[in-house]
Amino acid sequence: MASTANPFSISLSSKPTAKPSLFNPSELSLRVQTPGVAALRSSFASNCSVKLSLAKSKSKIMANSAQLVDQPPSTTGPAAPVVVDVDLGNRSYPIYIGSGLLDQPELLQRHVHGKRVLVVTNTTVAPLYLDKVVDALTKDNPNVTVESVILPDGEKYKDMDTLMKVFDKAIESRLDRRCTFVALGGGVVGDMCGYAAASFLRGVNFIQIPTTVMAQVDSSVGGKTGINHPLGKNLIGAFYQPQCVLIDTDTLNTLPDRELASGLAEVIKYGLIRDAEFFEWQERNMDALIARDPSALAYAIKRSCENKAEVVSLDEKEGGLRATLNLGHTFGHAIETGLGYGKWFHGEAVAAGMVMAVDMSYRLGWIDDSLVKRVHNIVKQAKLPIGPPESVTVETFKAVMAVDKKVADGLLRLILLKGPLGNCVFTGDYDRKALDETLHAFCKS
Amino acid sequence: MASTANPFSISLSSKPTAKPSLFNPSELSLRVQTPGVAALRSSFASNCSVKLSLAKSKSKIMANSAQLVDQPPSTTGPAAPVVVDVDLGNRSYPIYIGSGLLDQPELLQRHVHGKRVLVVTNTTVAPLYLDKVVDALTKDNPNVTVESVILPDGEKYKDMDTLMKVFDKAIESRLDRRCTFVALGGGVVGDMCGYAAASFLRGVNFIQIPTTVMAQVDSSVGGKTGINHPLGKNLIGAFYQPQCVLIDTDTLNTLPDRELASGLAEVIKYGLIRDAEFFEWQERNMDALIARDPSALAYAIKRSCENKAEVVSLDEKEGGLRATLNLGHTFGHAIETGLGYGKWFHGEAVAAGMVMAVDMSYRLGWIDDSLVKRVHNIVKQAKLPIGPPESVTVETFKAVMAVDKKVADGLLRLILLKGPLGNCVFTGDYDRKALDETLHAFCKS
Repeated sequence: MASTANPFSISLSSKPTAKPSLFNPSELSLRVQTPGVAALRSSFASNCSVKLSLAKSKSKIMANSAQLVDQPPSTTGPAAPVVVDVDLGNRSYPIYIGSGLLDQPELLQRHVHGKRVLVVTNTTVAPLYLDKVVDALTKDNPNVTVESVILPDGEKYKDMDTLMKVFDKAIESRLDRRCTFVALGGGVVGDMCGYAAASFLRGVNFIQIPTTVMAQVDSSVGGKTGINHPLGKNLIGAFYQPQCVLIDTDTLNTLPDRELASGLAEVIKYGLIRDAEFFEWQERNMDALIARDPSALAYAIKRSCENKAEVVSLDEKEGGLRATLNLGHTFGHAIETGLGYGKWFHGEAVAAGMVMAVDMSYRLGWIDDSLVKRVHNIVKQAKLPIGPPESVTVETFKAVMAVDKKVADGLLRLILLKGPLGNCVFTGDYDRKALDETLHAFCKS
Repeated sequence: MASTANPFSISLSSKPTAKPSLFNPSELSLRVQTPGVAALRSSFASNCSVKLSLAKSKSKIMANSAQLVDQPPSTTGPAAPVVVDVDLGNRSYPIYIGSGLLDQPELLQRHVHGKRVLVVTNTTVAPLYLDKVVDALTKDNPNVTVESVILPDGEKYKDMDTLMKVFDKAIESRLDRRCTFVALGGGVVGDMCGYAAASFLRGVNFIQIPTTVMAQVDSSVGGKTGINHPLGKNLIGAFYQPQCVLIDTDTLNTLPDRELASGLAEVIKYGLIRDAEFFEWQERNMDALIARDPSALAYAIKRSCENKAEVVSLDEKEGGLRATLNLGHTFGHAIETGLGYGKWFHGEAVAAGMVMAVDMSYRLGWIDDSLVKRVHNIVKQAKLPIGPPESVTVETFKAVMAVDKKVADGLLRLILLKGPLGNCVFTGDYDRKALDETLHAFCKS
């Protein structure tokens, strides 16, 4: 039987923590702000060419936050979802966030194209939510027929063989170009279903219904899809945007603690790279998030989606700015690949990777030691690891990092913090000695 | 040993053919014209929504034709290539056409991004042209290193297992996002290399160097990439545009007769669907094409590329107009799938498919019998089959056509001729009886 105990040997702070400042909705109108223009401008390396349209993004985010604040706390009818727009011209789409959204069939049905739907899910999620999703797709909608394919659960199945099962099912079911694929599950299901949708008949419509924090705050938004190769993560894939992302926060009720914590690594990331106020809010509310306070989770998801949507709108294909979303991921991918997929969750590896990136930033003299401590503290508070497992060596890090997607003409570019909280750079212009020192500081061999 | 005899049991016309009117370069300025606006507007079904920008396309084609005519017949230096532009906004690219282009390294090198190149080719083409291409890529260009992957030759290898060999090589060679993939070969190599480039690290640059008539006049242009599934052709793929297409017509010197004829099926197609004057030119020059007259081949390739470029510019993702390029292909795919990949060449199946589509168009009363005869004659003259092989049954046609990419909401849409030569429609609005009659007329069982 799988153990549910925390698998990391981390010595949590023994100091009794004060009762966390619980999430206060009245704070929202103050808290929900877009990062300042200056912070954004300085937040990526000067060699990145990205079109800025901040005024628009700012007004969009403010409008959405007003909706959240104005929403009555509870009604007898279904609550209106919070909507975050991903602005990509003719590929724009909404992210719906709220409780009970799978009980509002019209939300989903308005984004289904054609009469045939293929739901892609896995053996863990199917028993919990597949019937509910099929009901939402077909209620008062007799013209639509739904097929489903249930994949084995886990990162180690994010491969070509498993992807072929989706194509097999789509072709055997004689789906045509006007069909819609629906990804129901976490990041692995979303990435595979998205890549299958991008490739089936050279592209069909698809919808994301993420059911983990990781997928809700990060992987379901922005159109990165793909599968792993034995030599590295996400090396085969496509940029392909969904028709909508539907986040029913009720699906988190069935999420194991360790997976919840894994998703929070990406939430912490947004604060570090571009949203200091969000980071400060997390410092006050991390215990509430871990305790699954619904309002706190809803706010963290929304604010994360807003950050992600803004970055993706400015740089869809990762010309520069978007790469900053990978803080900690280059170190983290090396951990995942070195350990073998599935031993650690993605967010666990990212958390350890962020701590390593922060360490390296400090060695380069780019940040204060106070920030190093704050990152250590919040990662521990989120019950996430603050370093790699013993079995991953310096050699493993170097070998895996050499095939990272951010290598360009042989030079490894990293996302590192630089300046006050909320600022980062994406650069290959750093002292190699600092990278070496960080690797040796964190690895036993 | 493979026989080089014509594998089709076709009774060619026993009437002695008159000496064909050989290609006359002085005719070019008259012949190279864009199809009229009225013809184009009527050439696809009214349910297709396509943005027209004919004036621009027209001026572009005229400019290019002028270049061809003005070119001196022979010089001591390298000849300037004819250039046909594919106009797709920020994804636009040139098609270079001419003799000896692989001896002009600067043409290729200006489109290579980064310092690493992966040439994808096959066991037939590699011994003939791989060294030449590597020389062209590296001459006076010491910073560039070239890897290559040599795939088995043939449509039956256009599958996921073979595609993985390209990814394996790219990853083992530690290629990064700034690399360039080069497709050197026919349609299969181009489609696979293109899909690999679209998917590797979610998209890297690529260049097409087509070495067959089929690839030069059709598959290398327009960004359709993909692989086959056991249940159907090209069911998995992407729309992904190259940086350039380089057509060195000298590569046709090594092309077997049967493959040359296969490519001519697509040349005939352009005339039938949208370019009556080109069809009439072919009627006069088909024997010269079969005899490999260099000027005739160069003109047929150029005019075909112009037609393809214009259609792709107007409808990149096959919303409607672009589907007309598939005249004969739905019937043809059924032949290829029914026979097993590789028994007939793609163009052979397309030729038989075009004859079937023309038969069906006549049964619907949409074209005159004179056009039926002209199509029969030109297909025979090109040494292509005028019907499917005996082993492909009505049932096979129906089963394969049911999973065609042009099925939408269960309705099979076909490209059929309608009106005078050069006009066609893409429609699901036809009498099913005519399709049934055509299938029974061409199949023994």
